[in-house]
Amino acid sequence: MGQERYTVVEGGSVTTPKGFKAGGLHCGLKKTDRNDLAAILCEVPATAAAVYTTNLFQAAPLQVTRESLADGRLRAVVVNSGNANACTGEQGEADAYEMRSAAARHLGVAERDVAVASTGVIGELLKMDCVRSGLAQLPEKLDGGAAGAEQFSQAILTTDLVKKECCVRLTVGGEAVTIAGAAKGSGMIHPNMATMLGFVTTDAAVAGEDLLALLRAATDTTFNMITVDGDTSTNDMLIALASGLAGREPLTRQHPDWAAFVEAFTHVCRHLAMAIARDGEGAAHLIEVRVSGAADRDAARAIAKTIVGSSLVKSAVFGADANWGRIIAAAGRAGVPMSTDRVDIALGGIEVLKGSRPVAFDEAAALAYLQGDTVEITVKLADGEGEATAWGCDLTYDYVRINAAYRT
Amino acid sequence: MGQERYTVVEGGSVTTPKGFKAGGLHCGLKKTDRNDLAAILCEVPATAAAVYTTNLFQAAPLQVTRESLADGRLRAVVVNSGNANACTGEQGEADAYEMRSAAARHLGVAERDVAVASTGVIGELLKMDCVRSGLAQLPEKLDGGAAGAEQFSQAILTTDLVKKECCVRLTVGGEAVTIAGAAKGSGMIHPNMATMLGFVTTDAAVAGEDLLALLRAATDTTFNMITVDGDTSTNDMLIALASGLAGREPLTRQHPDWAAFVEAFTHVCRHLAMAIARDGEGAAHLIEVRVSGAADRDAARAIAKTIVGSSLVKSAVFGADANWGRIIAAAGRAGVPMSTDRVDIALGGIEVLKGSRPVAFDEAAALAYLQGDTVEITVKLADGEGEATAWGCDLTYDYVRINAAYRT
Repeated sequence: MGQERYTVVEGGSVTTPKGFKAGGLHCGLKKTDRNDLAAILCEVPATAAAVYTTNLFQAAPLQVTRESLADGRLRAVVVNSGNANACTGEQGEADAYEMRSAAARHLGVAERDVAVASTGVIGELLKMDCVRSGLAQLPEKLDGGAAGAEQFSQAILTTDLVKKECCVRLTVGGEAVTIAGAAKGSGMIHPNMATMLGFVTTDAAVAGEDLLALLRAATDTTFNMITVDGDTSTNDMLIALASGLAGREPLTRQHPDWAAFVEAFTHVCRHLAMAIARDGEGAAHLIEVRVSGAADRDAARAIAKTIVGSSLVKSAVFGADANWGRIIAAAGRAGVPMSTDRVDIALGGIEVLKGSRPVAFDEAAALAYLQGDTVEITVKLADGEGEATAWGCDLTYDYVRINAAYRT
Repeated sequence: MGQERYTVVEGGSVTTPKGFKAGGLHCGLKKTDRNDLAAILCEVPATAAAVYTTNLFQAAPLQVTRESLADGRLRAVVVNSGNANACTGEQGEADAYEMRSAAARHLGVAERDVAVASTGVIGELLKMDCVRSGLAQLPEKLDGGAAGAEQFSQAILTTDLVKKECCVRLTVGGEAVTIAGAAKGSGMIHPNMATMLGFVTTDAAVAGEDLLALLRAATDTTFNMITVDGDTSTNDMLIALASGLAGREPLTRQHPDWAAFVEAFTHVCRHLAMAIARDGEGAAHLIEVRVSGAADRDAARAIAKTIVGSSLVKSAVFGADANWGRIIAAAGRAGVPMSTDRVDIALGGIEVLKGSRPVAFDEAAALAYLQGDTVEITVKLADGEGEATAWGCDLTYDYVRINAAYRT
């Protein structure tokens, strides 16, 4: 990432940027006593933008959130885990709307300023009695400190092992601006969990169209470049809120600090995306695939995602097997042209293929490297300037165990 | 398949059609003592056609076979297992050509009438001393009976658990015509095994262009509709040989019995393809996904292949979990349009989703059904007449064990 023009705020969270409160509680949607209902509240109308799953079967909350975001502003986001409210028909839509209206009433904001997100089981109706009583207690749980953010980050998790947060700070027009995010990853131990939810807060004063363009661009190189099992969920949603309470200057694409803001914003998205891949179902390794020299960026993206999504590559990483044959075979089926006689492949710093010819490498060193926490696969082509990086995780016995587990 | 105009020949094999001999032996390419070198020989120049992997990284034997097939005729096919001769550079090409010339010399046929196929490890050079001595002994191993075919079918296997053969007979112009096939499936217990090789023999007198068109069409609905792990190999090849020794009439697309021949030929391909899916790595179940009512045939194919290839659907089948949410989520990411509110899903005869709404079903009955050997997933859409069927297998602990196994 070169010379960063931002700094990471250790321990920072979605409430670190000025103007945001957050909190969560257990209302009964999860069988355990873990938090399953949460909200982020902005003390002023925040400029807001969102991106949604491309799955044709979209859960009811996405429709409600689209409606609230029509004017590009939000005051609050309310989230439940334990139930995706997907494939639930008209009742599911009614429940999502009631979730929005009840949250608005208890938080004292307008309905159209509330976004709704859900993650959990597909095809089951929300226990609205739990949601109603939970929403009534939620306002008193919100605070602008680390405690509220902690409760929020815990509440959005499903079978994730760890909470996923990130916070960075940079200077815009001579004033400090903060960007933070929280996300939940892919846990599917209970069938049909939604895959990914992400929430980014900032106190920068960003125009709505610029925020949306930035969110889309950042998603394209971060959240859209991870895969755990290739299954796109019905509930994926990433929402960004900008309170504008830091800095007097509106931050636009013409602002001299815009590029720095883009870097910082993208860092938050990348950190969360990589955290999701690392915490993928049953994952023992984070896999990072870096492709360069592809015909163009789209070709590089296709190759990187095909390799990181290959069950054979994922299994080989689990087995600590320096198995370049599977890597090149995956590249060859990515559906994009490449010079097949000029491919270099390295695992970490260990070159295993040069000019599409096997390189004699130190198997012991490769084994040691592959047994580490993170495995970097570098693929260099000779077709152009296209570059892309994708992240995933290995395919393990635990993945099968988790996803073969009977629902009851 | 409705009323068949052909009959299955129990115990039939690639030597059942008139004019074909086959055989195999162990020459030392496999670490075990199992057969690893084999050939099919036709006593007359056979009309021949082939289809090849779409992977950009194609093994050397494919190039050699393309060359031999330029004139649409073959006398022999020589195959080795244990080494794919892929990503082996100029030496690999030279080895494939020598394998062809040595086979031609020992079999007493012209080089350009010999096709070469390999399956095994990627990136390692063939042990040509083994190949040479094996080819010298191969001619005496060939016979036109069941024994030779048995040796051939065993020799092409890698980690397949069972040999894969099929033979059918029909009447063309009042005379009996036989079609038979043998195939090897996806075994990857040793990293980088090639995925699929198929050989079809018939004594029908089919013109070359008609045979190729038929082979392509049959492949499209059979071998191209199976997936074990979504990884397309570098060595896939399907070769058809027609000796023309049965029946006086040349069989063309205009022949009144052409449709029956197409049905019979497709039956052989479908049987072999399904056998490969059923014998997929670690497979405990054969999964058949039938999609109907799609916008068109391509849409139906995309949806069927996406569902049967979904790691979550495959894991659910392994877990005997009637997990329709994963099926509909996979359909929703297939990249083709559909009416999302009019989807019916059934597992065997058990309806689980109707009009995109959950159906209360007997979980015990579903569990019992899913614990059976074959799982049929039926998806009915309301967008058109498009239909397609795809086959695959479940994702099991054994799949991970097999593919995580270290190479040495």
